[in-house]
Amino acid sequence: MNSLIEELDERYPEMVELRRHFHQYPELSHQEVNTPLTIAKYLENLGVEVRTNVGGQGVVGLIKGGLPGKTVALRADFDALPIQDQKDVPYRSTVPGVMHACGHDAHTSALLLAAKVLARHKKELKGNVVLIHQFGEEVTPGGAKPMIEDGCLDGADAIFGTHIWAPMPVGQAGVKSGAMMAAADKFTITVSGRGGHGGAPHLTTDALVTAASVVNHLQQIVSRRIDPTDAAVISIGTFHSGQAFNIIAEEAVIEGTVRTFSKQVQETIITEMERVIKGVCDSNGAAFKLDYEKGYPPVFNHEKETDIVRKCAKNVLGEQSVIELEPNMIGEDFSYYLEKVPGAFFFTGAGNQEAGAVYPHHHPKFDIDEKGMLNAAKILVSAALEFLNQH
Amino acid sequence: MNSLIEELDERYPEMVELRRHFHQYPELSHQEVNTPLTIAKYLENLGVEVRTNVGGQGVVGLIKGGLPGKTVALRADFDALPIQDQKDVPYRSTVPGVMHACGHDAHTSALLLAAKVLARHKKELKGNVVLIHQFGEEVTPGGAKPMIEDGCLDGADAIFGTHIWAPMPVGQAGVKSGAMMAAADKFTITVSGRGGHGGAPHLTTDALVTAASVVNHLQQIVSRRIDPTDAAVISIGTFHSGQAFNIIAEEAVIEGTVRTFSKQVQETIITEMERVIKGVCDSNGAAFKLDYEKGYPPVFNHEKETDIVRKCAKNVLGEQSVIELEPNMIGEDFSYYLEKVPGAFFFTGAGNQEAGAVYPHHHPKFDIDEKGMLNAAKILVSAALEFLNQH
Amino acid sequence: MNSLIEELDERYPEMVELRRHFHQYPELSHQEVNTPLTIAKYLENLGVEVRTNVGGQGVVGLIKGGLPGKTVALRADFDALPIQDQKDVPYRSTVPGVMHACGHDAHTSALLLAAKVLARHKKELKGNVVLIHQFGEEVTPGGAKPMIEDGCLDGADAIFGTHIWAPMPVGQAGVKSGAMMAAADKFTITVSGRGGHGGAPHLTTDALVTAASVVNHLQQIVSRRIDPTDAAVISIGTFHSGQAFNIIAEEAVIEGTVRTFSKQVQETIITEMERVIKGVCDSNGAAFKLDYEKGYPPVFNHEKETDIVRKCAKNVLGEQSVIELEPNMIGEDFSYYLEKVPGAFFFTGAGNQEAGAVYPHHHPKFDIDEKGMLNAAKILVSAALEFLNQH
Amino acid sequence: MNSLIEELDERYPEMVELRRHFHQYPELSHQEVNTPLTIAKYLENLGVEVRTNVGGQGVVGLIKGGLPGKTVALRADFDALPIQDQKDVPYRSTVPGVMHACGHDAHTSALLLAAKVLARHKKELKGNVVLIHQFGEEVTPGGAKPMIEDGCLDGADAIFGTHIWAPMPVGQAGVKSGAMMAAADKFTITVSGRGGHGGAPHLTTDALVTAASVVNHLQQIVSRRIDPTDAAVISIGTFHSGQAFNIIAEEAVIEGTVRTFSKQVQETIITEMERVIKGVCDSNGAAFKLDYEKGYPPVFNHEKETDIVRKCAKNVLGEQSVIELEPNMIGEDFSYYLEKVPGAFFFTGAGNQEAGAVYPHHHPKFDIDEKGMLNAAKILVSAALEFLNQH
Repeated sequence: MNSLIEELDERYPEMVELRRHFHQYPELSHQEVNTPLTIAKYLENLGVEVRTNVGGQGVVGLIKGGLPGKTVALRADFDALPIQDQKDVPYRSTVPGVMHACGHDAHTSALLLAAKVLARHKKELKGNVVLIHQFGEEVTPGGAKPMIEDGCLDGADAIFGTHIWAPMPVGQAGVKSGAMMAAADKFTITVSGRGGHGGAPHLTTDALVTAASVVNHLQQIVSRRIDPTDAAVISIGTFHSGQAFNIIAEEAVIEGTVRTFSKQVQETIITEMERVIKGVCDSNGAAFKLDYEKGYPPVFNHEKETDIVRKCAKNVLGEQSVIELEPNMIGEDFSYYLEKVPGAFFFTGAGNQEAGAVYPHHHPKFDIDEKGMLNAAKILVSAALEFLNQH
Repeated sequence: MNSLIEELDERYPEMVELRRHFHQYPELSHQEVNTPLTIAKYLENLGVEVRTNVGGQGVVGLIKGGLPGKTVALRADFDALPIQDQKDVPYRSTVPGVMHACGHDAHTSALLLAAKVLARHKKELKGNVVLIHQFGEEVTPGGAKPMIEDGCLDGADAIFGTHIWAPMPVGQAGVKSGAMMAAADKFTITVSGRGGHGGAPHLTTDALVTAASVVNHLQQIVSRRIDPTDAAVISIGTFHSGQAFNIIAEEAVIEGTVRTFSKQVQETIITEMERVIKGVCDSNGAAFKLDYEKGYPPVFNHEKETDIVRKCAKNVLGEQSVIELEPNMIGEDFSYYLEKVPGAFFFTGAGNQEAGAVYPHHHPKFDIDEKGMLNAAKILVSAALEFLNQH
Repeated sequence: MNSLIEELDERYPEMVELRRHFHQYPELSHQEVNTPLTIAKYLENLGVEVRTNVGGQGVVGLIKGGLPGKTVALRADFDALPIQDQKDVPYRSTVPGVMHACGHDAHTSALLLAAKVLARHKKELKGNVVLIHQFGEEVTPGGAKPMIEDGCLDGADAIFGTHIWAPMPVGQAGVKSGAMMAAADKFTITVSGRGGHGGAPHLTTDALVTAASVVNHLQQIVSRRIDPTDAAVISIGTFHSGQAFNIIAEEAVIEGTVRTFSKQVQETIITEMERVIKGVCDSNGAAFKLDYEKGYPPVFNHEKETDIVRKCAKNVLGEQSVIELEPNMIGEDFSYYLEKVPGAFFFTGAGNQEAGAVYPHHHPKFDIDEKGMLNAAKILVSAALEFLNQH
Repeated sequence: MNSLIEELDERYPEMVELRRHFHQYPELSHQEVNTPLTIAKYLENLGVEVRTNVGGQGVVGLIKGGLPGKTVALRADFDALPIQDQKDVPYRSTVPGVMHACGHDAHTSALLLAAKVLARHKKELKGNVVLIHQFGEEVTPGGAKPMIEDGCLDGADAIFGTHIWAPMPVGQAGVKSGAMMAAADKFTITVSGRGGHGGAPHLTTDALVTAASVVNHLQQIVSRRIDPTDAAVISIGTFHSGQAFNIIAEEAVIEGTVRTFSKQVQETIITEMERVIKGVCDSNGAAFKLDYEKGYPPVFNHEKETDIVRKCAKNVLGEQSVIELEPNMIGEDFSYYLEKVPGAFFFTGAGNQEAGAVYPHHHPKFDIDEKGMLNAAKILVSAALEFLNQH
């Protein structure tokens, strides 16, 4: 195992180069074209069996081991976000309004290099490794579900995956058995009033002011209606209303996300949202429409596979550098894989105060310490080998 | 005079045709190209002296009377609004997102036909008539000021203008001496926070929620800080924030308008807006920028010219059909003309319940009873003749 | 007339003494006991015919003139407010939580001294003077209505009254024909939730937070739903909820006042209040009760009697010192008298920057320049004589 | 041990009688007079050594066992709440506005009967039992601290206590090792404006409306600024402002409580509260004062003593009836005892849908199924004996 880890160290410059390439050419969820092409070509060059357009834009590689054994899957997602890159680095995004602000470029590069060293040593493998390069993780319905339906997990006995994690210093990793990441739902609220002249508000029903009140009142659901010991988030991501400063808008559209760890809290939030929106709109004589779209289920890690990750991460990073995580409100469609086969998802630290990697995920200046990506690759390779060796 | 009025009756079908043409091809303020071309060609065909590109896109015609006398100006504006036409009529706007939702198409057509009958009778005129076709009334800085600077009022002794008025039934007109229409200012508020992941609000400064609170608190200025016997409006026309449902937005931009009749109330509102916005942003740890742009001054009608309009309107519509108006919060850059020469602005009713002309100005289904346009033309022609005859 | 005015000048020290006495012993509306006793005794000592307990705690005096003529009434109110006096003067209120913070003490003293000089000259009077000392003006239903029903205006041909006015400098008076003061209504909103432990908000329905949202949303009625050119006020005077810091309150009670000049605006506000309160309470799952009590109608001054006041005030204070007022949102049950007989109400300036009389009415440090009280007495006496002499 | 449990069953009627007596004569925190007298007399009658006025109104009893051993303390609190009893039962509170709405009457009665059976068997006890009857638990600073300072724990080796718990069905108990109950702080916010007449809001600074906005904005701290996986509560218990419906209030006073499990979250809330209150008050031109009083620290149960409670509760109620609790936002000054000696606090179910014991703690209709009180006594006695027998 150690030789593969050392090989990853040697190939780190290539990993960085790949990552910066992806960083410069990000593609939005479900609109990925060149990224999967690049991935497929890379894997083919390694002599890996490749299947493209899996469940959409997914790419799946299969490394058949030289020795009999189980099959373990490793997964990386490759889509980007609708954010304007505001970093001042040579590898900043060249696509206006699109950016790898979540680290999927690093996931992809880590998995490609992992594939390279595993492929080079395939004769020694006690079983097979499936490489799942997933599209569209950021936008529900994500890519995991259609890729599973299209067979990407067929034959797999376990799965591992990681997320580069900027709030955690590079050199650390975080693991957690059981509930690790939240259910992530999407909602859209459309408030309809009656437009008119800005100088005559009394002849209108002001959809914009009503929607602002809705935003305000939604805060009370988390602060007043949810058991304080239950974790819950209602965040509003967009608010768009009006075309001209002097025209009272006919309509306002709000989009947002709800994060929960339990069905009961999720249902309470939906019920309360309906009540709050209806009451506020009624109070202003406005109408509304609420579209609530349940997203990814929570990520529940399996105990044995979490143990494998914990052990491997300690080997790679040192005993003290592996943190037991608190549950986290971020959603991940890795949950779908875990509903099918045992497995574990973990975080790999990539924050670095001195290097300026200090911004939260989804921030326009988000960046990582790329050594984190190397650590991610090492732990994934280790976990895959450990799993195969244990069985 | 009566023969000209009768001639307008006869030419009503042409006026309707013109108005529907303009209605189908609306052009946004300061982006007018074809509308002034059409106007200029029409006036040239009447043998009127025409000057184009006055102060920008303005068109000015001069009808020289056959008899010596004063010079009276008539003004109509011709720009449209950024509203999607939602009417279901054959003459609905063909331009996506642009619409004559304020009646400027009717003003223009009324003035063109007024020009036609005046031009045909120019030998009998005791003085001259200036036809001011103004661009860009809806957006400050409007077209009136540059057109005046470019000489459109040079030599004029008085001016009259009207606004088609949907809240008033067709067959009526409204007049008022003194303060008739409000000062109309524009403001833009930019709230800056710190973006981030929708599932981790505590790592962000939520600009969208802050801006919604600003909208909410601005309501208290009119309700609590302005003398209730002073008229004042703060309306917010646009609110735009965020690109994705699961990303907490870095920034929110709000635009709106302030309407007042006095400098003192205007200054109080500006001071209070700064205080409210600063306080609310401070409370959330967000930064902000307020751009406040003073717009048109209030419209103050001159007494004698208002008397002329009152008298002429009663002749045209009947004694009972001329209403004494309350002051009105709508802004109008007709105020600039009235700062230069005496004159009067009036409203011409164009509402009609049965015909479906029931929507307020700036509404996506706004329409008029076109007979109101005919009345407008008649009163303008009458007032021009009355002024010339009195002097 | 002038001799009576001079006599008032001479008796000014007594007027001040009386006013300071009343100031030290204020009595709440409808709970007046000693004030009417003092007034009645004073009038009896002048040899005036006195009727007590008129319509409740009212006192009415009748000065029969020596010459035949009409009957004119003068009115002063004598109740105080539930405010803790925070002034540091020898004559500050001795009653905890009760204070003459509106100047009714001055009204009463002015009218008592007016009575004294009129009574001393009754033989010369061309007709009669009725002295109406009214209780309970601050709290609807006020004292005017029951006093009228109990005959206080019987036989009167006209009425005059004044309000000491701190925002106006001493030495001035303000007059206005027509609508001068607003309709003043009272409302009580009771919000009912479900109480519980402060640490478990999700098991409660938080009446306090709901009521705070109601307060917030009520602001939008004036800012958004009333024609900006119509004057309207919704003020909330009290908010009481909860007994302990760690118990979520079962109930919250809000009281306030609505001020308008027209029935239509009044009705719009009532309709919108119901809608706003219902919507906000629904949004939180709380119940509510709205008690809306229409108060005093607007004060409409009669033209001829206003002319008398204007003339007399100019005589007393000088031509330049009589201001034409804008309409005012304060309510006054003087309106009931004006519905029965012609008359006029006016303001007498009593502000004085240097003397510290700078606080608004109903403020805990409210005080007046007492010379204003003297002016009030002079104008009232003059107006009474002028009316009697004119008829 | 079992014979003592059976004896408690037999003495249940006396326990009920005692509890109903305390229920009818509740006394507010720190104002307890008769309750400690009754307790002391009861204990003295049992032949227990009694010390009164411990740390204030506390009562401490000592049962010296016949055999050598350790000393274990049992604690019950006895203060009531400022809530008007709205139950319709024979034993409802006879004191207006004061009520045992939290079950301390039951705690007291359970401990008195526990004392009775322990005292009757003192010869068999392997060590001593200290009975801590605590005053003032509901109001910080509570009674625990001064009682400890006054020596109530001197010599004790461990402590147990329980809270009757209405949300849990009678027949169950709840235990938890580690963090079980929150830190409970108190805050008072005073908002100062400038009072004035309800009809002239523009001359005032409306403290009431400002305070309502503060209430509203405080909701955003929990919803936006605290890590969603951290438990936190900000509840506002009281809001008092204004004396009259038509006077704009000079001041508004808000009281509330903050609940947290960690110093860091507590500090974040304090910082954010200051920011929110300052910003909102600034936005309205109002001043403010924030008094923040840190209350009880969180209750952290010790592992071994929790094991004792778990074992004893299962013996008393059955294996399935002992629930592992989630942490709870209620504060308890039992935390102070646990900082001194090992111990455990637990919940004893007392809810009963059919018997109408369905209201949350601190609710005006709060009641319990009294069998819960019997269970509480049994578990306390068992735990005390178990502890003494183990050592």
